[in-house]
Amino acid sequence: MRATTLFDAWDIRFVEMPDPVIHEPTDAIVKVLAACICGSDLWAYRGENGAIDHPRTIGHECIGEIVDVGAGVQHFKRGDVVIVPFDHCDNTCVHCRAGMQSGCVNFGVTVSGQAEYARVTQADGSLVKTDAAGDEALLPSLLALSDVFPTGWHAAVSAGVTKGGTAVVVGDGAVGLCGVLAASTMGAEKVVVMSRHADRQALATRFGATHVVPERGAEGIAAIMEITGGVGADSVLECVGTGEAIDTAFHLARPGSDVGFVGVPHGVELPVGHMFRKNIGLRGGMAPVRKYLPELLELVMSGAVNPGLVFDKTLPMDQSPEGYRLMDKREAIKVRLTPVT
Amino acid sequence: MRATTLFDAWDIRFVEMPDPVIHEPTDAIVKVLAACICGSDLWAYRGENGAIDHPRTIGHECIGEIVDVGAGVQHFKRGDVVIVPFDHCDNTCVHCRAGMQSGCVNFGVTVSGQAEYARVTQADGSLVKTDAAGDEALLPSLLALSDVFPTGWHAAVSAGVTKGGTAVVVGDGAVGLCGVLAASTMGAEKVVVMSRHADRQALATRFGATHVVPERGAEGIAAIMEITGGVGADSVLECVGTGEAIDTAFHLARPGSDVGFVGVPHGVELPVGHMFRKNIGLRGGMAPVRKYLPELLELVMSGAVNPGLVFDKTLPMDQSPEGYRLMDKREAIKVRLTPVT
Repeated sequence: MRATTLFDAWDIRFVEMPDPVIHEPTDAIVKVLAACICGSDLWAYRGENGAIDHPRTIGHECIGEIVDVGAGVQHFKRGDVVIVPFDHCDNTCVHCRAGMQSGCVNFGVTVSGQAEYARVTQADGSLVKTDAAGDEALLPSLLALSDVFPTGWHAAVSAGVTKGGTAVVVGDGAVGLCGVLAASTMGAEKVVVMSRHADRQALATRFGATHVVPERGAEGIAAIMEITGGVGADSVLECVGTGEAIDTAFHLARPGSDVGFVGVPHGVELPVGHMFRKNIGLRGGMAPVRKYLPELLELVMSGAVNPGLVFDKTLPMDQSPEGYRLMDKREAIKVRLTPVT
Repeated sequence: MRATTLFDAWDIRFVEMPDPVIHEPTDAIVKVLAACICGSDLWAYRGENGAIDHPRTIGHECIGEIVDVGAGVQHFKRGDVVIVPFDHCDNTCVHCRAGMQSGCVNFGVTVSGQAEYARVTQADGSLVKTDAAGDEALLPSLLALSDVFPTGWHAAVSAGVTKGGTAVVVGDGAVGLCGVLAASTMGAEKVVVMSRHADRQALATRFGATHVVPERGAEGIAAIMEITGGVGADSVLECVGTGEAIDTAFHLARPGSDVGFVGVPHGVELPVGHMFRKNIGLRGGMAPVRKYLPELLELVMSGAVNPGLVFDKTLPMDQSPEGYRLMDKREAIKVRLTPVT
């Protein structure tokens, strides 16, 4: 098959690679119908996840049509169209039953989502069927359910967003924007987003942001403290993963509140003394996508939310390297990839 | 007055110092009727809180009789016997109303609790009256309400202890033992304490511990993973504040759970990558004592709990330096100090 493949930092190509095959009876293979590039893919692309010693496929967000299943797969068959959570789970183990599917004892991830085919481990537990992928108006939002929207949702859940409360979102990437959508859907009265880009500000507003703060650092903190009447936010969603973003988040959180974090941490030192003095908690991590999927799929299907709006650029999959370039330069919020024939 | 006074690391004396006086109309002065030494006092005693450039009084846990009040104090008068939370609050500000009294905008702390007199700021908000301090059987538990029991309770609340769940307590100091009492009072089915000292193990069992694990580090973790059926604990109470204790706590917490921490952190680097991968949160900090006081006072008065058992040594206050020595050497769990005449 042809697959988006990382050869080295900054060297990404759409090339011929081995087809994924069934390894375990619980596996399924899907033909990718829609895919996209994640902000976390950029860490690898930039070489910030360590050396790349051999060419490897990349991509963990997709929708696909099942083309093969292992002997143990009971609930899916060839031809089913499915949303593929980036994190696979059996959905039956003790951690899954407790609602933390990203801690599944049979955890796995999609590793060739930006390719013609991808392998899904724990197919029965991971996948959710959809009959709506043929609807071009719905497809982007269904695709957003494989990672970005549940991840923004997880930030809001982890930060304890409540009806009537004040939520601040640090980060105006696609995850941050989905965090805005999540917080406003959950009924937060004030939803503040930190963003300097006109297109992202506009989308944040469409997603329910009540306040847009373009300033960063101390100025941004001062502006948000004013919006919150000097109190700080009831919930802060940290959707970046850098030390600076974490630092800003903890300065904005009111005493006794929680910061929800979903950006893979890079170079982060947590301010434990500040957390202790202010009783500000930190919760979150890799989103348990499968947990949220039924609820979020219903929100999408009912038209209550349209997270697919985060895709402001669509490219044929063989142009995925251009997609990486656009996202790295912040010339696109999030790039959707369509199959090439 | 005579007061326990720190002159330098390891140099603590009970000496003549200036009487505390009313500074603000919201202040009260109490004559100390019962006091005690806190594990966190030991950090200062050992010189680990930075240089001590002038002699200063120490002690933040006490019960007292009011001898003077500022002009603005409305609810208390000379002669009232009161429990003095170590952290003072107005109990009316936006943070207090949200239940985080340790984040009060008028926050203060007791600074001469191991002395003849102490000043309480925000007397109306901070203090809780008691008529039971004359009852020698109840007095230790009432004294424990000024810090140690609410702090153990806060660890359990922050760690999300639930009825029927499994709680692990890291630390067998007085706070850890109070954490055991809190978790068992909240209905945790398994309460595991890590302790190597026979007297502390016995008290933990009396406080409701169902399992005592004497091993530390990797061995202790292995033992507790076995007790939890390989799952990890639903709630971990970190009641020490060292890097090693925090590290152990995060290894014991199951995916999706929260570590509750109440030990003032010293030399702690939080394992942010592990927290992210496992979705293990961290919550807690300085306990909002005033928040919990009404509920905990009722538990004490009804005889449901007896946190005063943490005091295994009682000394007249002029022997407070000996009390520090005993606690530093772990020859006493917690030392109670009685007034000298």
